[in-house]
Amino acid sequence: MSTQSPSTPPALSRTLCSALPDVPPGSEVLLRAWVHRRRELAQVAFLVLRDRSGLAQVVVREGRERLAALPEETTVEVRGRVVQNDSAPGGVEVVDPVLTPLTEPAETPPVELWRPSLDAGLATLLDHAAVTWRHPARRRSWEVAAASLRGFRATLDGLRFTEVCTPKLVGGATETGATVFEVDYFGRTAYLAQSPQLHKQQLVGVFERVYEVGPVFRAEPHDTARHLAQYTSLDVELGFVEDHHDVLAVLRDVLAGMSAEVAALGHGVEVAVPDQIPVVHFSEALSIAGAPADEPDLSPAHERAVGAWALAEHGSDLVAVEGYPLAARPFYTHPWTGPERPGAPGSNGFDVLLRGVELVTGGQRLHTPSAYAAVMAERGIDPAPYADHLRAFAHGMPPHGGFAIGLERWVSRLVGAANVREVTLYPRDLHRLSP
Amino acid sequence: MSTQSPSTPPALSRTLCSALPDVPPGSEVLLRAWVHRRRELAQVAFLVLRDRSGLAQVVVREGRERLAALPEETTVEVRGRVVQNDSAPGGVEVVDPVLTPLTEPAETPPVELWRPSLDAGLATLLDHAAVTWRHPARRRSWEVAAASLRGFRATLDGLRFTEVCTPKLVGGATETGATVFEVDYFGRTAYLAQSPQLHKQQLVGVFERVYEVGPVFRAEPHDTARHLAQYTSLDVELGFVEDHHDVLAVLRDVLAGMSAEVAALGHGVEVAVPDQIPVVHFSEALSIAGAPADEPDLSPAHERAVGAWALAEHGSDLVAVEGYPLAARPFYTHPWTGPERPGAPGSNGFDVLLRGVELVTGGQRLHTPSAYAAVMAERGIDPAPYADHLRAFAHGMPPHGGFAIGLERWVSRLVGAANVREVTLYPRDLHRLSP
Repeated sequence: MSTQSPSTPPALSRTLCSALPDVPPGSEVLLRAWVHRRRELAQVAFLVLRDRSGLAQVVVREGRERLAALPEETTVEVRGRVVQNDSAPGGVEVVDPVLTPLTEPAETPPVELWRPSLDAGLATLLDHAAVTWRHPARRRSWEVAAASLRGFRATLDGLRFTEVCTPKLVGGATETGATVFEVDYFGRTAYLAQSPQLHKQQLVGVFERVYEVGPVFRAEPHDTARHLAQYTSLDVELGFVEDHHDVLAVLRDVLAGMSAEVAALGHGVEVAVPDQIPVVHFSEALSIAGAPADEPDLSPAHERAVGAWALAEHGSDLVAVEGYPLAARPFYTHPWTGPERPGAPGSNGFDVLLRGVELVTGGQRLHTPSAYAAVMAERGIDPAPYADHLRAFAHGMPPHGGFAIGLERWVSRLVGAANVREVTLYPRDLHRLSP
Repeated sequence: MSTQSPSTPPALSRTLCSALPDVPPGSEVLLRAWVHRRRELAQVAFLVLRDRSGLAQVVVREGRERLAALPEETTVEVRGRVVQNDSAPGGVEVVDPVLTPLTEPAETPPVELWRPSLDAGLATLLDHAAVTWRHPARRRSWEVAAASLRGFRATLDGLRFTEVCTPKLVGGATETGATVFEVDYFGRTAYLAQSPQLHKQQLVGVFERVYEVGPVFRAEPHDTARHLAQYTSLDVELGFVEDHHDVLAVLRDVLAGMSAEVAALGHGVEVAVPDQIPVVHFSEALSIAGAPADEPDLSPAHERAVGAWALAEHGSDLVAVEGYPLAARPFYTHPWTGPERPGAPGSNGFDVLLRGVELVTGGQRLHTPSAYAAVMAERGIDPAPYADHLRAFAHGMPPHGGFAIGLERWVSRLVGAANVREVTLYPRDLHRLSP
């Protein structure tokens, strides 16, 4: 049976740095943390510790030579006594410390983690990710990501969606023209899934309402600030919709839930999500952007103009553009079902812009076998690789739709990062396959 | 702005099948569902509908020829009136229906989904996954998986763990001898990550406590009932531990949280998780199993014997085996720190068995740079491919440990599935890359 060895000196449980102000002054405490910074003055030295909860100050008067073995980032155990000191962070500090290193003296970090802001180029940030993420400001941007994931799932669990796990290795068919990675799969060629699109649609046939959070892969040859070879896709699909407005209503609740969890972090970061996301038709969006009426898609400049319009007209950071030209959307997109519009045939597909940048793509999908047969014939798509997928439709599917949110784009807009790589723990791109 | 078209007849919102008994008798309702079964009697026909919430019975007296266009699995909208009928499921049924098909007549499914149990071979189940998962009994086994994921995350969120997303494409170093898949990565060779082990350890240096739910990949050439080429790994890692017992304490809480969410489904499936998981040392486990004292590992038969012992002696479905021989564990495993034992050098690595089958692998890891240098020299491992990883340790890491749970193994034990493929939505193996 269990063989926990008795500790000497008598067991004292760990106090987190942020909990120190709640400890009665005079108490003995045990801290375990990183050395965030050493500051040596003439008569005294200060050791600033960092753990997952925050910072704490330790005062070292006797035996200051011990600090030589505790350079910044070394992990350490500190036993000491809590005293009040109004000029210390949190109003308390730890005195008379017994210092026990938990590892060997740490090497000097590639960036000064104790400075309030992290002054380093992108390459340094990414090359030394395991260390640079330790900086409190940088860590907060990932906390925004983690909170967003909590809010996403909590909202959908509340709406009785079922979480699913789909295969990331697929045999052939892919749903858009995106470039895919090839895998040597036991001597055959497989591909990394560029999205869970086809499987999530099939699973609407099982669970009606599904979501998945997972990695998706794009062999993006473009070296831009917005593209990654692997990103985290937040996918949703739901059945028995009237049209894409039912999908937009769920998207609105999801974004509100994500923003609420982010706001609860107290980092001063959030998106105001209105009760209803303003919706403009694609043709109106072109007109707002001052673009010719026959443009087939919105350029980034057009998106910025539409975002500015939404803020000015509706006070909203978010705006949905519906009715995109059908020809510009994937084959499974449902044709426009709203009032007739001039121009090329439209679709029930939408994009949602956050502060003028595309954040979400979604829409209503085709759901009848005859509609799939027709569109594949029209677009010259061979149905053979899609045989497994189309079988779900032959056996009865409801009208349905869904959307996908790119986690890294969402976080980068929220925290104001210029490049999605800054908010990705270990980004992968054309040049980067490590660390 | 929004262009929702007015519905005719006047809008009536959808009622789920399971909510029918709560509707006042005589009310008009709107159902949207699959045709689960048609039953034609001499004077009347019954249409049993299925939606995500359950089943409902519709009575068709007039115009029974309309049912020809509604074979099983066709999706349909039904407007009708609720009446009490004590012999109907739920005590109510819908009469005077207006039936509107939502798609074309469905093809006959490859299995009879309306039968109480699904009588089909594994190949049929898997080849027609999108349809066979619609069977209510089969769907319930995935609901166990989804509930387990909720319980896993809720427990760890409560313990202030941070969710992370690690790269699934890696450049070189892998942490065990498992066979990996090769990917053509922009003309270079990349590998699919066999686990998030190295990245999750690095991230303990940032967040102290991390978890990830995600796909992992093994190029398993074995065609067994327990192995998949892609499975869902529930990974946890935490810092500032005394030894592996701190890791086991978190694992206990996680399994209890997962089991509680599963039990709440009301499917009669759960695992009784004791306040403390019984722990036996590897040498005791060998002795319980009647194996020679110099065996290097536990065979499946040994594991069954230890599982039976835990149930008999401790009334527990779960048992942890600690102190596995160091040589049989990955290089990052921490040596045994408990009381001295006879035999080969042990480790702070453990396995947890559920009903006599390995479910979890975990333990304390090495955390000092010198320990890594020593073990790599001893095992003849070239440190160069691990340079990025080892840098995290050079810059200060706390004592830490963690574990990984295989979702599919957990679910298969809970629901009594003989093969993990039965509880995987779209399994991937040596032979299977579709649907």
